[in-house]
Formats: sequence, C-alpha cells, structure tokens
Amino acid sequence: MISVAVVLGSDSDKAVYERVKNVLSALGVEFERRIISAHRTPDMLKEYVVGAESRGVKLFIAAAGMSAALPGVIASHTSLPVIGVPAVSASPVLGFDSILSILQMPPGVPVACVGVNGGENAALLAVSILALGDASLKKRLRAYREEMRRKVEDKDRRFQEE
Amino acid sequence: MISVAVVLGSDSDKAVYERVKNVLSALGVEFERRIISAHRTPDMLKEYVVGAESRGVKLFIAAAGMSAALPGVIASHTSLPVIGVPAVSASPVLGFDSILSILQMPPGVPVACVGVNGGENAALLAVSILALGDASLKKRLRAYREEMRRKVEDKDRRFQEE
Amino acid sequence: MISVAVVLGSDSDKAVYERVKNVLSALGVEFERRIISAHRTPDMLKEYVVGAESRGVKLFIAAAGMSAALPGVIASHTSLPVIGVPAVSASPVLGFDSILSILQMPPGVPVACVGVNGGENAALLAVSILALGDASLKKRLRAYREEMRRKVEDKDRRFQEE
Amino acid sequence: MISVAVVLGSDSDKAVYERVKNVLSALGVEFERRIISAHRTPDMLKEYVVGAESRGVKLFIAAAGMSAALPGVIASHTSLPVIGVPAVSASPVLGFDSILSILQMPPGVPVACVGVNGGENAALLAVSILALGDASLKKRLRAYREEMRRKVEDKDRRFQEE
Amino acid sequence: MISVAVVLGSDSDKAVYERVKNVLSALGVEFERRIISAHRTPDMLKEYVVGAESRGVKLFIAAAGMSAALPGVIASHTSLPVIGVPAVSASPVLGFDSILSILQMPPGVPVACVGVNGGENAALLAVSILALGDASLKKRLRAYREEMRRKVEDKDRRFQEE
Amino acid sequence: MISVAVVLGSDSDKAVYERVKNVLSALGVEFERRIISAHRTPDMLKEYVVGAESRGVKLFIAAAGMSAALPGVIASHTSLPVIGVPAVSASPVLGFDSILSILQMPPGVPVACVGVNGGENAALLAVSILALGDASLKKRLRAYREEMRRKVEDKDRRFQEE
Amino acid sequence: MISVAVVLGSDSDKAVYERVKNVLSALGVEFERRIISAHRTPDMLKEYVVGAESRGVKLFIAAAGMSAALPGVIASHTSLPVIGVPAVSASPVLGFDSILSILQMPPGVPVACVGVNGGENAALLAVSILALGDASLKKRLRAYREEMRRKVEDKDRRFQEE
Amino acid sequence: MISVAVVLGSDSDKAVYERVKNVLSALGVEFERRIISAHRTPDMLKEYVVGAESRGVKLFIAAAGMSAALPGVIASHTSLPVIGVPAVSASPVLGFDSILSILQMPPGVPVACVGVNGGENAALLAVSILALGDASLKKRLRAYREEMRRKVEDKDRRFQEE
Repeated sequence: MISVAVVLGSDSDKAVYERVKNVLSALGVEFERRIISAHRTPDMLKEYVVGAESRGVKLFIAAAGMSAALPGVIASHTSLPVIGVPAVSASPVLGFDSILSILQMPPGVPVACVGVNGGENAALLAVSILALGDASLKKRLRAYREEMRRKVEDKDRRFQEE
Repeated sequence: MISVAVVLGSDSDKAVYERVKNVLSALGVEFERRIISAHRTPDMLKEYVVGAESRGVKLFIAAAGMSAALPGVIASHTSLPVIGVPAVSASPVLGFDSILSILQMPPGVPVACVGVNGGENAALLAVSILALGDASLKKRLRAYREEMRRKVEDKDRRFQEE
Repeated sequence: MISVAVVLGSDSDKAVYERVKNVLSALGVEFERRIISAHRTPDMLKEYVVGAESRGVKLFIAAAGMSAALPGVIASHTSLPVIGVPAVSASPVLGFDSILSILQMPPGVPVACVGVNGGENAALLAVSILALGDASLKKRLRAYREEMRRKVEDKDRRFQEE
Repeated sequence: MISVAVVLGSDSDKAVYERVKNVLSALGVEFERRIISAHRTPDMLKEYVVGAESRGVKLFIAAAGMSAALPGVIASHTSLPVIGVPAVSASPVLGFDSILSILQMPPGVPVACVGVNGGENAALLAVSILALGDASLKKRLRAYREEMRRKVEDKDRRFQEE
Repeated sequence: MISVAVVLGSDSDKAVYERVKNVLSALGVEFERRIISAHRTPDMLKEYVVGAESRGVKLFIAAAGMSAALPGVIASHTSLPVIGVPAVSASPVLGFDSILSILQMPPGVPVACVGVNGGENAALLAVSILALGDASLKKRLRAYREEMRRKVEDKDRRFQEE
Repeated sequence: MISVAVVLGSDSDKAVYERVKNVLSALGVEFERRIISAHRTPDMLKEYVVGAESRGVKLFIAAAGMSAALPGVIASHTSLPVIGVPAVSASPVLGFDSILSILQMPPGVPVACVGVNGGENAALLAVSILALGDASLKKRLRAYREEMRRKVEDKDRRFQEE
Repeated sequence: MISVAVVLGSDSDKAVYERVKNVLSALGVEFERRIISAHRTPDMLKEYVVGAESRGVKLFIAAAGMSAALPGVIASHTSLPVIGVPAVSASPVLGFDSILSILQMPPGVPVACVGVNGGENAALLAVSILALGDASLKKRLRAYREEMRRKVEDKDRRFQEE
Repeated sequence: MISVAVVLGSDSDKAVYERVKNVLSALGVEFERRIISAHRTPDMLKEYVVGAESRGVKLFIAAAGMSAALPGVIASHTSLPVIGVPAVSASPVLGFDSILSILQMPPGVPVACVGVNGGENAALLAVSILALGDASLKKRLRAYREEMRRKVEDKDRRFQEE
C-alpha cells in the first residue's frame, strides 16, 4: 500500500527525487511520485492532495526551489505531515529563497523542513514517522542507521591507515 | 466601481494596509479589503480571487509576512496583475523570508514585488496601471507626484535655512 | 501515556515551550519537559534520549538557539522523529545561526525543522505525526484547524466592516 | 503600435532580454529595445523616457545588475508603470545588490520588481497590465497560461510513467 | 569658499548630516547642504550638481538609505569625487540595501563608499582629499588625528586604573 | 612624478591590479605597485606607507580579500586618501568578508570603498581626486567619461538594429 | 604573574570585557587590560604587543566591533595565540562585519574566533590553553565546567516541577 | 608523542586535512587523524575524545561542514582546547551554515573557530598553543612565520620588476 507521496514542483528537482527514491526503495516503503506546480497548476495540486489523503497516503514529501510554495500549499490542504525539501539547483546565486519560503510557515500550518537538497533526510524522516506504527519498518530503519555507522567506521579505518 | 482588491495574509499586516488605503483614497480609487490566509484558508482565497475577477476587479494588492505565499497563490488563480508587499513587522530578526518568497516566483506566474512594508508604493503602482485606461486618474497621479516633489523642495528650503 | 518529549537547550527558550505546551494541552497530547544542554550536559542528554525511547516516547521536540546542536544530537541518539525549533531570543543580531545549525543536518540523520520560534507549528507537526496512529487525535487536529479557519474568517469579517 | 519599452543597463543583460522578447513576441505585443545606462548616460535616459511616454509607450521593462539604479531612475522620470528585473550574470558572488537596489524604492516612486533574471515574468506582468485594456490580448494571455499548465501536466504524466 | 556639497536623500538622514557638519566645521571646511531626492526630484538634482560644479564645489558627500541611488546619480552627472554614506535609520530590518546600492557602481562611474551611517568618516575622507591642495588644512587634519589618538590613550589610561 | 601607490594584499589580487593599471595608464597618471600583506608583513607595510607619503605619493589604492585589513591598516598610518577594493577571487563562497572589513572602518579613520573587484572605479576615483589639482588631468578624465558614453551609445545603436 | 592580555578596540566593548574578567578572576588567572585601537593607535598597539610578549604574557584576548582589525593586527605582531571576540553592540543593523573581519584571516596568521560577544568563552578558551601547562588551573577549569553542569541540572529539575 | 588529534566529520573534508597535515609535519608536531561523525557515530566520538585526552593528546582540530556540530560536541566532552574549521566544499550555495554552527557556541563550552577551509591556520594556531610549553617548537614557529614574510617579499620584488 502506498504510504508516501513525493511531489516535485518542477522537473528540475529530479536530483532531489533520486535521493528520496533510493532511500524509500532500500527500506521497502511504497510511494508514488508527481510533478505538480503550486503556482502553475494549483487546482491539480489541491485535487491531488485531497485525493491522496482519501486513498490512504500517510505523508507528503515535497521538493521545490525559488519561491518554494509547494510544501506550504500542500500543508494548507491537509493535516497529514508534510516534509519540505529546499531544492537549489540551476539558479546561480541564491539559496535562501527556497529555505526561507519553506521554513517560515505561519502558526497553524506546519511544514517539516530538511536541509538544502536533503532528499535522503526527507526520506529517512518519512520512514521514522511511518515506523512509529510499523515495527518491521522500525527494524529496517535501525539496520540502515547501523549500516551508516559501519560505513563511517570503514572510512575512518582506511583514513588512519592511508 | 471597485477596481482594486487589497488582501492581507493576517491582521498583523494592517500597518501596510493603512498606507495602501491612504494613497488609494487620496487618488479616488475604489477598493475592497480582505484578510485571507493562503495557508489557513486556501479555499476561501481561491473562491475570492475568482469571484473578484468576475466582479470586475482589475488588480490585486497582497501583503504578507514570513513564508509569504499569499501574492503568489493569488497569481496562481488569476492572470490579472498582482502586486505583492513583503510585510516585516513583529518577527524580530529576519526580513528576507517575505522578500524572497514574494520575489522569486517561477517563470510563468509573475508577481510585482515592491519594497518592505511598501504599502504606499504598492498603491501608486496600482494607480499607475489603472491610469493607463483612465485619463482623469492619470492627471490625479501626476498631481500627486508633483505634490511629492514640492514637499521635498519645502524640506530642502527649510534645511538650507536651519 | 507520554508520547512527546519537549527538550529546551536552555531556560531562555521557555517562550517557545509555552507555545508548544498550549497546543499539546489543547489537543490532549501528554508530554514531558526537560532542560538539557547538548554542549553542557551531553551525557545527561544521551541518557535521557535513550531512556525516553525505551519508556515509549514517540517523538522529540527540541528548541535551541545560537549553535543549536540540540535537535541534531538528539537525532544522533535515536531514530525516532525529532522536530527542531530555532529559538531566537536574547541575541540581538543574528538568527541564521540557529536556523542553519538545525536545518543543514548531514545525510543519514534527519531533523524536521520548523520556523523561527515556531513552537505552535512544532506541536502541530508532532500531533499530525501521532494522529497517523490515533483516529481520535486526528479528529481533534482537524477540529483545531477548522477552528483556526473560523478565526481567520472572523477577522476578515470584522476587517471588512471596520 | 509600440506599447512596451525594454531597456537594458548594459549589453551583459541580453540573456534577460531574450526571455522578455520571446514572451512579448509570442503574445503579439509590440515593443522597442534599448541599451541605456542610468549611470553612464543619464541624459540620454531621461530624454528617452520622456520621449517614449509622449510617443505612447505604456510601460517600461528595465533590466540591470549590480547597483541597479536603472528601473528606479526611469521611474523618477515617469509615472507610467516600470517593471524592474535584477540581472545577475557575470559577478561571481553577490546577487542581493541588484535585488535590493531595485526593490527598496522610497515611498512615492514605485518599481514593480520581479525575480532574479526573471525576464519571462517581467514580460508576462507587462502583458497582464496591457490586457486590462485589450480583451484580445487577455485571451492570448489566458491561452498562454493554459498552455503552461498543459506542459506541467505532460511532464507529470511522463514522470509517473518513467 | 564653499568646497563641499552635502546632500541628503531625505530629512530622515539628518543624523548622518550632524556628524558630517561637526567634522567639517571643526576643521574649518566650508560647505553647503541640501535635501534632494534622486527618485522624487531628479531634475532638481541634476541642476544642482551641474551648478555646484560650476560654482567651484570640489566634492560631494551624499547620504541616502534603502535603494540609495543618490550618490550614484550625482556621480552620473559629474566627474568630481562623490562620497556616499549608507544611511540606516528608521527601517527595522535590512541595511544591506543601502550598502550595496551605493557600493556596487558599474565600471566607469565610481562612488567612494564609507561605512553605515559613517558621517564622520565621510567628512574626514573629504578633508583628506581637499588637504592634498591645502597645506594648512592638512596640518589641521593631522592635529585632528593626533587628538583622536590622545583620546584613545586617555580612555586606555582610565581603563587600566579603574 | 608618482602620485598613486597601488598595494595588493596578495598576488591572487592581480586581476584587480590589471584594471587599475589600465585606467591609470590610459589617463597618464604615474603610479607604483607593491604586494605587501597587512597581516604577514606589517612592519614592511608601515615603513612603505610612511615612506611613500614622504616621497610625495598623494593617495593609496589597496586591494585585498577575505579579512581585508590592508586598506584600513594603510589608513591607520597616513591621513592621505586611501581607496579600498574588496577582492573576491578564489574563495568559493563568501564575498561579504572583504566588503565589510573594508567598509566598516571606525570613526576617525576613513577608507573610500568601491565595489567588488572594482579596479577600474578605484582608479577613476583616484583620478577624480588628483584632477582637483590638475586641470589637464581633469580634461582627460572628462574625455574618458565622454568616450564611455559614446561606447554605450554604440552598443545601444547596434542593439536596436540587431 | 600576568599571563593574559585583554585588549579592547574601544570603550564601547566593555560589556565583553566584564564577561572575560569574571571568568578569569573566578579561575584565578592574572591578566592585564587595555583599550588600544588598531586603526587609531597602530604604533601603540605594536609596541604593546611586542612588550607584552617580552614581559611573559602568554596569550591575547582581543574584542572589537565593525571592521574589527584588532585581533588580526595583534596576530600580525606576535606568534602567541590570539583569541578574537566579535563585539556587536551599538551598531543597529549588522553583525557580520565583525564576525567575518576576525574569522577570515589569511593563511599564515591565525586568530581563534569565538561567538558574538563571547567574552565568557574567550576566557574559558584562554584558560584551557594555559591549563595545558598548569595542572592546578586544569583542576579549577574542570570544577568550573562541573559547576556549570550542575546549574543546568538545577534548572532542569525546577522546570520539571514548575 | 602525539599531541594533536585531527578529526574530520566526513571524508569530503580531506582537502582541509591536507593543509593541516602539511603545517604540522613541516613544524615537527606529531598528530593522529580520524574520521568520526558527530551525528552518525556519536558514541564512537565520545569514546575517542575521552580516550585521546587520557592518552595525553593536548588539543583537537575538528573540521566539519553543513550543520557542523563536530567541534562543539568534542568540546562538550573535554576541557582541552578545540579548534574548529568550517569546511565548505561540495555544497553549492551556502557557507554560513558551517561558520555559524561552529562559531556561536553557548557560554561555557568554547570552540576556537578559524576561517572557511582554514586548515593551515588551524594547524598554526595549534602550534602557537603547544609552543607555549615547548621552546624548540616556538623557535620553529617563528622561523615559519619569518619564511612566510620572506615569501611575500619575494613576490613583492618580482611584482615590482614585472
């Protein structure tokens, strides 16, 4: 059953998507994916969010750049958890635009913001939430983190021996 | 006939509204005013924007702070001109959040951003747009700018004589 | 049963706590509260995090200012969801220090960051997560958001009539 | 009849111009184009602005970088609408210089600022203004936005099928 | 003979003026003062700059805030030295707007920028320039700096004895 | 006779120097050039500044990056005019470090700051200062600016014809 | 014997000094204090630094604001450890000026920067350095940190019981 | 005997390490090196810090990027001096994240921060600290700085002759 909806504001955010996909797939979490723009296709977005909630989707991961309204507009249409990823890719100069647009939501409509281009962490945050009601997923998440620790230890060992 | 719709994202943005009101009233432009939140009342916002356009409203002035999605979401529902005012009031530290959220719209959905708390300039910009089709308003706008010039000259004279 | 642990990095972050408390209390979510510093009392922090998880706490809300390591260090000791609140109070100038310290976590150890001093949103995000496994809480959350909408509508009505 | 004047502060801003041109041409809006520097050729600029207004130009689009005085100086010479585009190209580091120079105009002399390098949105904003007095242009603008929506839907469809 | 022209963009910049006046008066440099806005009274500004140069004024000190075009526009009308002072007073949040607007002039039209609200340094810079052709003024400038040194030494002595 | 001393804080600032050299050479101003670091060779710097002043040098142009103390330290050793150029080259991220280090001098010790990598403007500012006491140089400066104007007009003409 | 020299760039930095004094006094470290400006009294500064080193001073704590050259200039005259404190007090807007001026030293001349107004941490860092060669001081430092831990625990206890 | 522990938060910080290594090796200071993540391997980090102190390590150099908790967490486990290096490498946009995370430590737990990617200065700062108790090392440090001075003089000579 699909529990996570991954929404990109534009196809220029696909690099973020790849990281989300890799983690969710590795941990056995089913998800669906969409490109829907908060500003260009607002009606499609509302329809999708409401429909996804009624089909049983449990949380949203939304990646967007610039004036990144996507995660906030999703949160305006649902009280499910919404995880926002500031996407910083093509635009040459700034980066605070997407961070602050996603982070500084008004009281009452929360978005859980992760770091710039933080697709992996968005997925892991989603997994940590779903794992609250899924003991088997919790086990896989712990194994993932254990594996991450082992990788650091391997790099540390090699670095000491270099 | 009402030609301008002034929308605040929250009642903490009323100081911006006062400046908008003063200029529009002084120049004889009829307007209506609302408090509608892009994030807390998204359906009311869409309904209002679509309705206002069909009632003959010609442009929107939208003031909002923090993750200021309001002007952009209005622009997503209409192709009328939308003027956005970054409101920076209570929040003690930042200011770039509302500037960048309003300014950095994706290609295809423009917002005309004015300066921080720039209610007066938002109103004057609105007037300059409406004046394109209203010769009498254009005259009043020119008189307003002439008056502004005279005020600077007065201050200059007094400053030289101090 | 206690499902949320609220941790402050210092007693100067109590204003954030008040907002968290108000929302969690209003929505009937049980929580416990602590002041533990990531930098001054690191052993106490680890002991607490590990203990809280084993006592059945389901997620952490952590508020901290300056070099705000608290949410990240909690996340390093648990795979439960951790919500971080950048606290900006006494320090006169900056604000990006706590935002970026909390937001820019390395891949593998996510923190769900909300806006500056966003105690209310941290609590609502926590509730939206817990509500995934608690139909009664979900109802209360929806009622809370409905109430929020009504408040905006009231303000809007009064503003139009002023 | 020419209704839009596009002015660049320097020939290094031509990339912005290309986007403006594409949109205006696609929507059938006649325009003229100039390179005039606010700082290097101030007299030519004033003469041009005053002349353009008397020839029937209805609004200005001005793109400039660094200490981007161009849009503001144009606005000082006319009460027609002026749309400013912060151009960020060659300079390796900053970007806030042109944003803030264009955005933070003093009360009384408004500039409608769009996002960094936002040539497309500057043109669409111009079109939305001109469309207030031109029903056929309004129709073309709506079709343009409809087309934009369809493109997002196409990308969405392909993304789901990938 | 008047050798320095001090121009404020608005009467809210008078605090900067006071510091300029104190230093120029203390060092016996004659000056004149004006309030002229680059954006609100552009023609008056040009006329004044050209006239001042022909009356023998040797350099300009210009203080302005927000989108501080004043120093740059003066520099566009003269090749005399122009010293710009970013004025940061009433506006609650930013400060980079006036700094960057004054600093980032395009190649060919220089402005000598001093620090935020740096009226004293603007005046001393002016004096150091005029002193190149005035040996008596140079002596007074050196005495002024010597006096400044003595004041630091006095404070140092008292601090050691506290 | 040498009237300008150009000092670089490091040989990584040579790109700035090239622009300074081109302008000073074109306008017939004699200068000397040095690489002296405020932090690595402080005694050499003091010795050089004091010596240059006694040899008749009239002003300093100093370019430096990062914690750009060079212009300020020169200004601490002389009351001649000092022009500072923030050099932003190799360092990948910041740029505000050199701007603010040069700009925000304490009251009493002014530095005339120009824009990032603004070698051309530093040289033109120097020329405008020297021209106060040199009528022939003033003529050449005016011709340079006239030529600059003509170049903009040429580009404008070609752009209109493209 | 005096082992620490505390230098302020101006008497407006005394609030930082108070925090330094409190910690050094509490831990029994002897120090001397001075107000010397890098820009206004450069010769006095050099003389003092060289003299202090020859009198057996082991490290410097230097607090300065704005274009805070003081710590770096001290470091240019000695190879003893120099701890810099960015002082942010009177100036209404910025804060990055002193941070970046102190932090971004060129390779070869290090300064150990602590946080904004971080007098307490500057002192504790000094103590941690001196304690490397003083077992009794090391004991006192550990007791100080233990005491600090106890204070957090007390606050935590009271917070739980409130 | 090993007196310095160099810890990287990730193997992407190796460029900083190379600069640290070069200086420490050139000056004959023995060190050990590790890759340990504050967030991914917190227990390993604590164990290492405590162990290193008991084995006689005298100070830590820690380089980390993004939400750079590493230096602060090390400082939470020891009262030995900790030098932090903000590492800014792969991440395309920001840089203030690691600076502010390392710099803005709470009172009581100091970190000595050096500039962005300042591996050389971190090592020299470490040497200046160790040299307080090692006269031979102090000599080598002075020779290193003398050599650095000579290199600037060489570059200066070549630059003058170019």
